[in-house]
Amino acid sequence: MTGVPRLSLNQATVRHLRLDEVAALCVKHEIPAVGVWRDRVAELGLAQAVAAVRAAGLHVSSLCRGGFFTRAGREGRDAALADNRMALTEAAELGADTLVLVCGGLVPGSRDLGLARRMIADAIGELVPAAQRLGVRIGIEALHPMFCADRSVISRLGEAVDLALQFPADAVGVVVDTYNVWWDAQLSADIARAGQRIAGYQMGDWVLPLPADTLLGRGHLGDGVIDFGPISASVRAAGYDGYAEVEIFNADVWDAPADQTAKTVMDRFAALAWGSGSLQPPAPAGSTASSRGLGRAGH
Amino acid sequence: MTGVPRLSLNQATVRHLRLDEVAALCVKHEIPAVGVWRDRVAELGLAQAVAAVRAAGLHVSSLCRGGFFTRAGREGRDAALADNRMALTEAAELGADTLVLVCGGLVPGSRDLGLARRMIADAIGELVPAAQRLGVRIGIEALHPMFCADRSVISRLGEAVDLALQFPADAVGVVVDTYNVWWDAQLSADIARAGQRIAGYQMGDWVLPLPADTLLGRGHLGDGVIDFGPISASVRAAGYDGYAEVEIFNADVWDAPADQTAKTVMDRFAALAWGSGSLQPPAPAGSTASSRGLGRAGH
Repeated sequence: MTGVPRLSLNQATVRHLRLDEVAALCVKHEIPAVGVWRDRVAELGLAQAVAAVRAAGLHVSSLCRGGFFTRAGREGRDAALADNRMALTEAAELGADTLVLVCGGLVPGSRDLGLARRMIADAIGELVPAAQRLGVRIGIEALHPMFCADRSVISRLGEAVDLALQFPADAVGVVVDTYNVWWDAQLSADIARAGQRIAGYQMGDWVLPLPADTLLGRGHLGDGVIDFGPISASVRAAGYDGYAEVEIFNADVWDAPADQTAKTVMDRFAALAWGSGSLQPPAPAGSTASSRGLGRAGH
Repeated sequence: MTGVPRLSLNQATVRHLRLDEVAALCVKHEIPAVGVWRDRVAELGLAQAVAAVRAAGLHVSSLCRGGFFTRAGREGRDAALADNRMALTEAAELGADTLVLVCGGLVPGSRDLGLARRMIADAIGELVPAAQRLGVRIGIEALHPMFCADRSVISRLGEAVDLALQFPADAVGVVVDTYNVWWDAQLSADIARAGQRIAGYQMGDWVLPLPADTLLGRGHLGDGVIDFGPISASVRAAGYDGYAEVEIFNADVWDAPADQTAKTVMDRFAALAWGSGSLQPPAPAGSTASSRGLGRAGH
């Protein structure tokens, strides 16, 4: 499988498990890597979290997440920087490939997108020395435009690439998350332009209808409308040889038994992650994943 | 007010009124133009709808809407074209500046964004002769990316411009709708590039949180996070001198008395539509519009 992105399970997909339980799940299902969240590291304590993933022999593909730089006032911004420096330290301890950034929405009390974008660029610049010293790469994630006001004014991969290119390549890259960028007509071109700046690849499907909480609209690969094959092919062609994280925020997925979720993640990843884009996945036999999602794609 | 976009009331903002009642409302409040929906024309019958807007002395800034070209199968596509030809005829009878297109999402049963985009380009090409013969301009509207799967795979103004530029300028333009495009870092550049292709300008605010039905998340100007001044300035600088339509899909707005809605639309339009981008609108005195929306913009 050289050159093919290997699977990593982002722990948000099995949110009811502690990090040590996620590590055990990965060992059981022979998933070689995990994407870790800071609040779940804090739950165990950093030392025990590091011990848990090391004992399991797991690679940590990402630490989620830093960012949220667009606070009002000097104090808020200083606190955000301090928190992000702490996150870089945690990422280094965990041996994570990338600290994923959700950069922040509009500054409270402001409608100025340009101001928010400048504040983000300034903050990332402040973090570069720490990232270089610790050997951790910052991965700017473009979030879907529906999160522009309140979570990230960096809405397209192209914007994330433009931002990353202002900083040294060893310190700042971008994270490609299919759920956030699949709709973009420039996606393939921007992935190619990102090249070696791609610091992470996350996968989740766009399922209709959107749930009331739009943060929870992600589905298992194949349950929605995203054509993963061409996106994965672009990411590989750009030179990315890291892990592909499956990250699914979905209340139904969280209600499922963890072993079942792990199995579904692996089966769908094998069938769809870098496939031909075929609507009928070659495996597992009898899967109805494709038809399920597409029945709701009409208008 | 020469050179300043004049107000048009899109009838979707007062959805509980019939078209003749909307016409009377506009006369009462001295709103000079109206944006009309096809189902509400059908409700009166075309002849009576035309008579109602003419008797009121109203300009029709747009007819909403054509499009939805991405149907599966030859029959579906032929039906879509026939329906759009009918829409062009209605637009001509009404003297509408523009037939607004919502182009269509993914083809049912397909995940192929490129296929959907090619089908849309082909369909618009088929409609050009009728548009030219009837003297109606087709206005391609980019919809917010959250509607990409099910309503329009044309997600950014730049895409709409690229598409329009493939056809004669008298037949095909673009519609700029603030609600759909406000988040886009390339917006100002794409508006400038659109130039004389701008065939319509629609305004509605992005209000947080998104409602369960994401189609209904629009708010009165000033109730959300959009900075209208710079967008309007770009549209005017591009040479657009048509009407600015206020179009708000929002259950609370629909529950309000029509006179109150008309007054709010006019007051907010006067204060914010082409303003300085100031958070405190200069009029009306005592308005709490700005603070109301922004309190919910934090994260």
